[in-house]
Amino acid sequence: MRAEVVSVGTELLLGQIVDTNAAYIAKALSAAGVSVYRRSTVGDNMDRLIATLSAAFGDNDIVITIGGLGPTMDDITRDGVAAALNDKLVQNGDIAAKLTKFFADRGIEMTESNLRQAMVPVHGKPIDNPNGTAPGLLFEKDGKIAICLPGPPNEFIPMVDDFVSPYLLSKTGNKGTIRSRVLRVIGMGESSVEQIVKDLMLDDNPTVAPYAKVGEVHLRVTARHDTAEQAEQLVEERAALVRSRLGRLIYGEDNQTLEQAVVSLLLNNGSTISVAESCTGGMLAQRITDIPGSSRAFPGGLVCYSNNAKVDLAGVSQATLDKHGAVSHEVATDLALGVRKRFSTTFGIGITGIAGPDGGTEEKPVGLVYIALADSKGCKVERTHMLGARNIVRTRSVQTALNMVRLSLLTPRH
Amino acid sequence: MRAEVVSVGTELLLGQIVDTNAAYIAKALSAAGVSVYRRSTVGDNMDRLIATLSAAFGDNDIVITIGGLGPTMDDITRDGVAAALNDKLVQNGDIAAKLTKFFADRGIEMTESNLRQAMVPVHGKPIDNPNGTAPGLLFEKDGKIAICLPGPPNEFIPMVDDFVSPYLLSKTGNKGTIRSRVLRVIGMGESSVEQIVKDLMLDDNPTVAPYAKVGEVHLRVTARHDTAEQAEQLVEERAALVRSRLGRLIYGEDNQTLEQAVVSLLLNNGSTISVAESCTGGMLAQRITDIPGSSRAFPGGLVCYSNNAKVDLAGVSQATLDKHGAVSHEVATDLALGVRKRFSTTFGIGITGIAGPDGGTEEKPVGLVYIALADSKGCKVERTHMLGARNIVRTRSVQTALNMVRLSLLTPRH
Repeated sequence: MRAEVVSVGTELLLGQIVDTNAAYIAKALSAAGVSVYRRSTVGDNMDRLIATLSAAFGDNDIVITIGGLGPTMDDITRDGVAAALNDKLVQNGDIAAKLTKFFADRGIEMTESNLRQAMVPVHGKPIDNPNGTAPGLLFEKDGKIAICLPGPPNEFIPMVDDFVSPYLLSKTGNKGTIRSRVLRVIGMGESSVEQIVKDLMLDDNPTVAPYAKVGEVHLRVTARHDTAEQAEQLVEERAALVRSRLGRLIYGEDNQTLEQAVVSLLLNNGSTISVAESCTGGMLAQRITDIPGSSRAFPGGLVCYSNNAKVDLAGVSQATLDKHGAVSHEVATDLALGVRKRFSTTFGIGITGIAGPDGGTEEKPVGLVYIALADSKGCKVERTHMLGARNIVRTRSVQTALNMVRLSLLTPRH
Repeated sequence: MRAEVVSVGTELLLGQIVDTNAAYIAKALSAAGVSVYRRSTVGDNMDRLIATLSAAFGDNDIVITIGGLGPTMDDITRDGVAAALNDKLVQNGDIAAKLTKFFADRGIEMTESNLRQAMVPVHGKPIDNPNGTAPGLLFEKDGKIAICLPGPPNEFIPMVDDFVSPYLLSKTGNKGTIRSRVLRVIGMGESSVEQIVKDLMLDDNPTVAPYAKVGEVHLRVTARHDTAEQAEQLVEERAALVRSRLGRLIYGEDNQTLEQAVVSLLLNNGSTISVAESCTGGMLAQRITDIPGSSRAFPGGLVCYSNNAKVDLAGVSQATLDKHGAVSHEVATDLALGVRKRFSTTFGIGITGIAGPDGGTEEKPVGLVYIALADSKGCKVERTHMLGARNIVRTRSVQTALNMVRLSLLTPRH
């Protein structure tokens, strides 16, 4: 079965709200094995809505509309879908009574337009909406299906979960289910990752697709098969193949973040870490402490933004600062060694660099960052030149630091 | 002029990511006076992309594509637009040289596919992308315009601001324009803010609409008029009325963040600040140092996650910890006084609390946070009980701390 999602609302076209509902219904459709080749967004204009719906019914079995079911004049979805399917609307007595009671209970005057929400299709039925006054609508006519849902997410999401997903599964017999998994890669750029899995990207079931993120690459493996179990098995086999090629470049799967992976490794290993940050200004500490339970691996950190703080807090020597400058291999090393000693941790991280947009020179340009990792065996420093705005430089620096810790925990240097 | 926005990417159709770019470009289009009647989303499939683009060019003067400009095989936008407009792509020597240098500088091998990013239209030109390797593309052929932009928001947004908006304004001469402004409110909940501006929310030009954010509320004022100047004047008059009602609850406008407002106030006042964070784990320091130039107001901070760190680094007394516990009015006070003394700053902030999801007790539940602000006159503590997940508790705590500093700078306590 094929579906098109049509979002209705001028506020979407004007960019006043972001269409998070469209992403939510897309996941429900793919989980039920319904294919989506296209999504459309139209404003509150009847002619354009009908044109879009008619084209969508021409190409698809199912059209799902989002929004435009309210009581006001610019809520046109109900009438638009009826027109596109050549169906009629009639007033539903139960819903009209419920609406009348709703307004009476609240002491609000009910206007004539509120009763528009009691109109339901002749070839179809209302869909229960426990969180709002507008019911959803199901049209089933001439082999075409329309499902009309209200726009507020607190009404929309429960209706997708409670009605749309079970309904679609009953139609598809849960055949042709889609499953997917994300393999999260760090330490290699998107095009190099692609070279390694290029042949797999040519297959259309399962598919493998790379997505570049800030400081990492996600590989999404997606498979379709008759049952969820079979789709899951296809995904797992292909993921295993990708894992065998990328090895330690893969740090985690699905929603696992890099900081989660690192904190897990630290806790499993009984190791601890402390950090001394200059240009990242607390971002590394914040990422680590975002993970519940990180306190067992992380006693604390220093944000050494000024040179004085580097000397007083982390024990960087004034002579080193004078000779090499704050952004240097030597100062990064002193920060890592100093903070490790101060907190008596297994690892110490030192980060110093130029996040921009100002402060760069020809010799030390914006984006130059030194990241040092100290442990009982000594100190290792990476010099990197990050491209991008201030926030990107800082985020990439934190990614690199976390990955250095991860690799060190995977490959003990003893 | 009429435009259609076409977002390209299977990950959008599958609902794996939310299309925030589409909302961003929609605002730029409406600000330039370009009408958008429709938005489409298609997957990484060449036939469907070309069909969608051809239909879009049939109905519109301008088509803006988002995504699909990367170096990999499933990045099909470049070729799809050229096909739909019957244009050709040629390699641009400057971009090819820049790409080659980019990879050489980083010691990464450049693959053949990376050079696809150097292909530009015969009837058009590349659009500069300072934050990534893929340039955008402008096609101008047979009276139709296509603007192709990359998908990563950190590349996309600056290109909209720096190229697309000025380009569209030059084409439209800026007629029939929408202008809007966001007034950013902190220290009052959405429904209370709404009560204050309720009458203004009934008008349809200008409109006033509230949006709840984590720890703040945004009021969007939008007006439409023949010229940009007239629309701007309508917005400004309405904004002035809102400002007169909300006063100091408004900390900033449009894209100004709370940390920007606070760092500006600190710099204008010649004041400095240092922070000692427990449950926020570096998030406050990270927010402050996100602002370029913050180094003149912020020498550094302490992340005192363990009790030892609170004692050793911030000078919290062991007796206070034993008597009142780490999450207490007294420890917050000691953190603020201690860090202020350590860094010799005008202000010192101390934050201690229970971010969750574990660690709460009946007496000290998850979400209980003490925030202390020390200055030359003493120390003020706010006890708050934040609702929400770990990240929400931490973010709200940082918002409260920044607002305490802001109010203190607006109302000197001398």
